[in-house]
Amino acid sequence: MDSVRFTAETSSDGVLERDFTVAGVPGVLWSPASGSKSAPLILMGHTGGLHKRTPGIMARARHHVTGYGFTVAAIDAPGHGDRPRTAQDDQARDALLRARAAGEPIGPIVAEYNAALAERAVPEWQTALDALQALPEIGTEAPIGYSGITLGTAIGLHLAAVEPRITAATFGGVLVYEALIEAARQVTIPILFLLPWDDEEIDRRSDLALFDAFAAKEKTLHANPGRHNQTPRFEVDDEARFYARHLGAHVSSSSG
Amino acid sequence: MDSVRFTAETSSDGVLERDFTVAGVPGVLWSPASGSKSAPLILMGHTGGLHKRTPGIMARARHHVTGYGFTVAAIDAPGHGDRPRTAQDDQARDALLRARAAGEPIGPIVAEYNAALAERAVPEWQTALDALQALPEIGTEAPIGYSGITLGTAIGLHLAAVEPRITAATFGGVLVYEALIEAARQVTIPILFLLPWDDEEIDRRSDLALFDAFAAKEKTLHANPGRHNQTPRFEVDDEARFYARHLGAHVSSSSG
Repeated sequence: MDSVRFTAETSSDGVLERDFTVAGVPGVLWSPASGSKSAPLILMGHTGGLHKRTPGIMARARHHVTGYGFTVAAIDAPGHGDRPRTAQDDQARDALLRARAAGEPIGPIVAEYNAALAERAVPEWQTALDALQALPEIGTEAPIGYSGITLGTAIGLHLAAVEPRITAATFGGVLVYEALIEAARQVTIPILFLLPWDDEEIDRRSDLALFDAFAAKEKTLHANPGRHNQTPRFEVDDEARFYARHLGAHVSSSSG
Repeated sequence: MDSVRFTAETSSDGVLERDFTVAGVPGVLWSPASGSKSAPLILMGHTGGLHKRTPGIMARARHHVTGYGFTVAAIDAPGHGDRPRTAQDDQARDALLRARAAGEPIGPIVAEYNAALAERAVPEWQTALDALQALPEIGTEAPIGYSGITLGTAIGLHLAAVEPRITAATFGGVLVYEALIEAARQVTIPILFLLPWDDEEIDRRSDLALFDAFAAKEKTLHANPGRHNQTPRFEVDDEARFYARHLGAHVSSSSG
């Protein structure tokens, strides 16, 4: 089995931050410096074009670790961050740039690329999860959540549809394609869905239809004014409280 | 000026509950038994056909008082609870019963009656607010919020559009008519909007359009599976946290 190889380690303000690779995929693991045996593990998927250390992921990771005692892991999506690009990645990026420059809709290109990335990323997340569970401080008892918007939702939704170890998930603000709706119909775990109300690139009706498609009995939609990828600060704590409700609070929270 | 006349008082588990009347309108005031000088005051509007002591209002009042130190006030809407019915009330109720028995849509009847009730209720709330602010334990410094769903939203929305003393409000799940959309366009205070996703009597698209119409820069929609008037328990605390964010937390919360 592929195992976690730690490559760097820093610690500040009670948060231990460790770079790692699993089967060549680079990631970051954030955990309480005081230890975190079997604490809930939240997997975080970044947005399209970015990487495992986006400001949004960093803020959430620090909040969830210090406020709730969770462990947080992020990996680079295929063709993103510190990873090499394939011919498919280059073609998709070129097509996006051309469409943007020509003022043409990018939706179809993003949807097709996201679907392809999800196909590549799902087995990578499963390998990473196997390896993370082999770490003594995580183990197989830690409840597992997933959090991601845009590309992170596309990947996470396909992952959640086939991966029973994930038992709660935050999604949101994604370009919807038919296979995503199909995946949502398979997802029965509790869902928190974050919808930016004024997204200039996504028709909110398609995201409302995606929320409607989830088979989950417990699903909550939070919509706030804001454009693509904008989320009010208080939603970070709302997300942590959602995980605490469904995965169990590990330590008494400083803020919730 | 009409003043608050207290008619009964009980106290249990740290909550002082006082019945009152203002200008003939009966109400209930819940406050911390330990005192509540200038704590945020939340006005609560009940749903159509019910009264000031619905289970939903009782649960919210107790939670907000004990967890956040808020003061909560509810009054009976015109023609509801302990209040006499006018010919208009009787006609509307008869029309509703006939439509239900005949399997005809009740939407138009409810919308027309709600609009009429709002017209009667807005000045009553303003009179009650004047009188409540004259109480030494409330005063004119207490920040004021409003919370109501269905009929409570119709009344509260028209109230918030004309009453600058209300600076944050929770609305939700209401039969939408044009004057309500017009009122929402006047409302600039922060809004939390609770939408039951599976309401059998309200087209969710009309409530989404109402949420969209609010002029507020800070507005959040929370949608959850459930039928008319069903709200998950955790939304009670989400509401309190919303008021704490915008009106100020009065005491450190036991749960947030």
